[in-house]
This record gives sequence, C-alpha cells and structure tokens, in this order.
Amino acid sequence: MTDLPMTVTTDGLPSAVTIYEVGPRDGLQNEKAIVPVEVKAEFVRRLVSAGLPIVEATSFVHPTWVPQLADAAELMAALGAEGRRLPVLVPNERGLDRALELGLEHIAIFGSATETFATKNLNRTFDEQFAMFEPTVARAREAGMDVRAYVSMCFGDPWEGAVPIEQVVTAGTRLLDLGASQLSLGDTIGVATAGHVTALVDAFADAGVGTDRLAMHFHDTYGQALANTHSALQSGITTFDASAGGLGGCPYAKSATGNLATEDLVWMLTGLGIDHGVDLDAVVATSVWMAGHLGRPSPSAVVRALGS
Amino acid sequence: MTDLPMTVTTDGLPSAVTIYEVGPRDGLQNEKAIVPVEVKAEFVRRLVSAGLPIVEATSFVHPTWVPQLADAAELMAALGAEGRRLPVLVPNERGLDRALELGLEHIAIFGSATETFATKNLNRTFDEQFAMFEPTVARAREAGMDVRAYVSMCFGDPWEGAVPIEQVVTAGTRLLDLGASQLSLGDTIGVATAGHVTALVDAFADAGVGTDRLAMHFHDTYGQALANTHSALQSGITTFDASAGGLGGCPYAKSATGNLATEDLVWMLTGLGIDHGVDLDAVVATSVWMAGHLGRPSPSAVVRALGS
Repeated sequence: MTDLPMTVTTDGLPSAVTIYEVGPRDGLQNEKAIVPVEVKAEFVRRLVSAGLPIVEATSFVHPTWVPQLADAAELMAALGAEGRRLPVLVPNERGLDRALELGLEHIAIFGSATETFATKNLNRTFDEQFAMFEPTVARAREAGMDVRAYVSMCFGDPWEGAVPIEQVVTAGTRLLDLGASQLSLGDTIGVATAGHVTALVDAFADAGVGTDRLAMHFHDTYGQALANTHSALQSGITTFDASAGGLGGCPYAKSATGNLATEDLVWMLTGLGIDHGVDLDAVVATSVWMAGHLGRPSPSAVVRALGS
Repeated sequence: MTDLPMTVTTDGLPSAVTIYEVGPRDGLQNEKAIVPVEVKAEFVRRLVSAGLPIVEATSFVHPTWVPQLADAAELMAALGAEGRRLPVLVPNERGLDRALELGLEHIAIFGSATETFATKNLNRTFDEQFAMFEPTVARAREAGMDVRAYVSMCFGDPWEGAVPIEQVVTAGTRLLDLGASQLSLGDTIGVATAGHVTALVDAFADAGVGTDRLAMHFHDTYGQALANTHSALQSGITTFDASAGGLGGCPYAKSATGNLATEDLVWMLTGLGIDHGVDLDAVVATSVWMAGHLGRPSPSAVVRALGS
C-alpha cells in the first residue's frame, strides 16, 4: 500500500499549494479538557517538523471565552524563537499588544460575513466590526506584521441560513482594504457545496480580488470538505486551511464542526500530483499521538486507515 | 437550516443522476451480527419509498461466504412482486437459476480488474473469470434480464498496489462484450483520487465505452469518495452507487471500507442543483433506524449532522 495513492495529474490545477495548519488553534479551541501547554508545544513542533509551512499556534483571545487557549503566553514562551514566525489569532488591540511584545511576525483576525454571527461572536454589528478591526490592523501593519483575515460564515449561517455571495465579498474586500494580506473564507458550519465555492471565488475575481489573496477554510460537517477543495483547486485557489487529524468540534455530535483533516487533504493532493511538502506519515503519527492525549480517535479517514 | 445547502449550479455537470443504492447488499454483507429478514425487507422498502430509483436487494452468493445474505430467498419472498424489479447479485449459474425461478428482471455480476483479487474472490485467474461469467450472462440475456457488471479494484488493489488503467478497461470491455449493459467501476479499497477518476473515464471513452454505460462505485476509506464523485460528474458520469448511512465495512477500523453514504451524495447533488429524486430526510431517518438495529452510529457525515 506504500505506493498509493497512485498519482494521476489533470490539466488546470495548481502545481503546488500551501497548507495552513490550524489544528493547535482552531482544532483545540473547542476541546473541553485542558491540554497541557507542553503537549501543545510538542504538537506545534511536530507539525512544523512534518513540513507544514504555516502552523497557527494559538489565540490571544480572553480566557473567559476560550479557556483552552488561556495558556497562549506560556505556549509562545515554550516555542521560543521558532514561535515568532508562527501566526497567532488576535481578536482586538489588547491581543495585538501581546503579539507586539513577543515580536511576532504574523497575526490573524476573525471577522464575520453575517450580521448575526458578528453580533454573537464579536459583539458588533456587521458594519461595526470593520471599525473595531481598523486600529488593530493598522498598528500591526505599521509594526511590519502580516495580517490574515478570517471571514466566517461565508456559505451558510446557523441563524440566517444561506449567506448572499455579495455580502461575503463585501466583508472580504473591506478587510483587505484595512490592510489584510489574505482572506481565509470559512465554511464555518460546513454547508458549502462545490458549485457554491466556484461562484464565491468568481465573485471575488469580479471584485478585483484574485486567488493569490484567498484561502479556503472548509469544515466536513456534511462530508463536503474535499469535494469543495477539489472545486476550489479548479478555480485556482492555492492556500487551504486544514487541521491535523480533523481536530475541531466533536465529529460524533449533532452540528459537528470538524475541520478538514490535514491528512485527507494531503492524500488528495498527492494523488493529484500537487506539491505540498508535507510528510503524511509524520502528520498521521502526530494525530495518533494527539488523539491519545484527547482520549478519542481522530475523525480523519486517512488517520483511521493508516494510523493504527 | 432547512434551506441548506444553498443550490448553486455550475456549467458542465449533468442535470440529473441516478443513485444506485447498494446498502441492503454491499452495505450489510460484512455485518457480523445477522440482521433479521423482516428488518432487511423493511430497509429495502423504506429506501424505495424514499425515492431511490434502484435498490440492490441481496446476493445469491453461497451462504458459506456471506452468512449475512443466507436469507436471500426469504427476503425476495417477503418483498413479493415489488422485489422482482430490484437487482440481485448473482455470482454464478446456480445463482442465476434462483433469479430465474423468482422471475427477477435485473441481476449483477461481480468481476475483478486484478489477477490477485480474481483468484482470491472468484477462484479464477483474470482471464478465466470471463469464461465463468459467459454462460451466466448469456442465459440471463436470453431470459430478457438486464445485467450489470461490477468491476472491483479499479484503482488500487491491496496485494498489487496501483492498478494499470488499461487493465481496468480490458476487464470492463470484456464484461460488456459478454452482454452486460452497465459497468460499475469500483474503488474497492478507496484509494482513488480525482485525477485518476478522470483518466479512467477518458480511457473508457478512448475504447468506445461512453459514460452512459458507466457507473462509479466509490468507497470513503481515505475520505475521497465525494471529491471523486465531483470529478466523475465533470466527466459526465450519471450513475453513482451509494449506501444508505455509509454502511459497508467498519468505518472505525484499519482498512475501513465504508461505501460512499447516500446522504452525503444527495447533499452534494442538491447543492449542485442536480436532480436525484431522493427525499433526504427519509433516507436519514432510515439510516438512523438501521443504525439502531446494528447498534452503532452511522459513519455518514450528513446522518451525524441531521439524524439525531
């Protein structure tokens, strides 16, 4: 089985993609049982060592909201100099202050494509969120930092249902106008399907935003994440968010919100002959190791097939 | 959430597809605990009632090999007149005799694209399998039956690794030459990726076999089944095998061999605006009900998200 998948290329796909690993932040943030900081540091180190070019390490969110990431400062201290090039989620200016003190090079902010989720998650209206992010992004850029902007609920929203494509483009372009270098378009509740992905990328192109400034962030709630990735590759997207072992939310519960598993993505890219630079066996071993710490099996199909 | 997924069509896809439901046969055949025949009959009836146009009911294989389906005759009796239009797998002439006695209209045979699997599963060499199938297909066609031919191990084989595309085309065309009306190209161990699917469909076209005579049968062992389906749709395939609830093999074990879940396929097709005629809620309810009989949750993402 070591010669599988068989690599068969097709026309019209990128020759290489960048996997943006979100396991340590997006994957762990919903875990109830607190993972020790030394385990998190080892998790990050193993993912970097496996060849993942970008590993989002943690979030400087207030610990009241995300208790799991209350150890962000300790984690960054444990990672030392190596950690300074890793992106960290920064919800506001207080978070930015912490990133500046540590000399970080990359931050990410987390916006919303819908009014309801902006209100619930950011305590701002859709319009107000941009005013809130403005000083954070401006100061980060002045300090020479790179800023990524997540856009959540880009396809559907649990309160509003289907999200109009033009509303997503509005949210995205306003975040780029503030100074973000890249948008991560999130299918937060996993309801995107392949044609919807194509339409969203096309709409951004019509608004002057090329695929070089877009990343896709798919969730596998309805099993669609890799089909959507295939569609996005055909639209020219070359950056994909993924989470080692499919960490993120509980895969066995209603409204499961598991992220696309890094391993499942790597398997597909290998089959398509698209360069990714990741050592699949090393990521699988890392996910099996982390599953041991979390006390339940990985929901990733590839980890289940190869990891035991 | 009832208005999701949002339907967004794209160019170049079929306007309608036929879902060939394999849950009662391929899905159940590996279940260790024997499912009572009245439960199987109810399973088939519910799937038909949910709008699935073709439901493969069972197999006339020798009960030594597949104890779960030893009740094939009782099941067909329980289904009565309605069952006569449902396909049944027939491994050989003895199986055909049983199908003829019952007045069935459709049978399926099960060939192999590889030498090793032909030897292990059929006790024949690659070449010998066609001689074995010849009288079965000939007699079935003389009796006015429609014959479907499964081709297993079309992408990879656990003993031989990657399977040459020309070998799959050879197996398929020889089965069509015997009188089969349709090939179901099986990714039995789930190792296909999207470009490989395109290449296989193209190779059949080069051999004069159009997409109207091809069905795809994907397994989700490595999470690729829906991405491969998306690719196959773009190649013009309009018949897809799927199993309600993703039944088939154990999804939580090494070398898991779960079939593509009917519900996950229906969700994608709905999102793409492709007609399928299936009532998703009814299939989900059926899979939840069957999961109760089997004593473990469905591995289908859509069933997990909607079914509790």
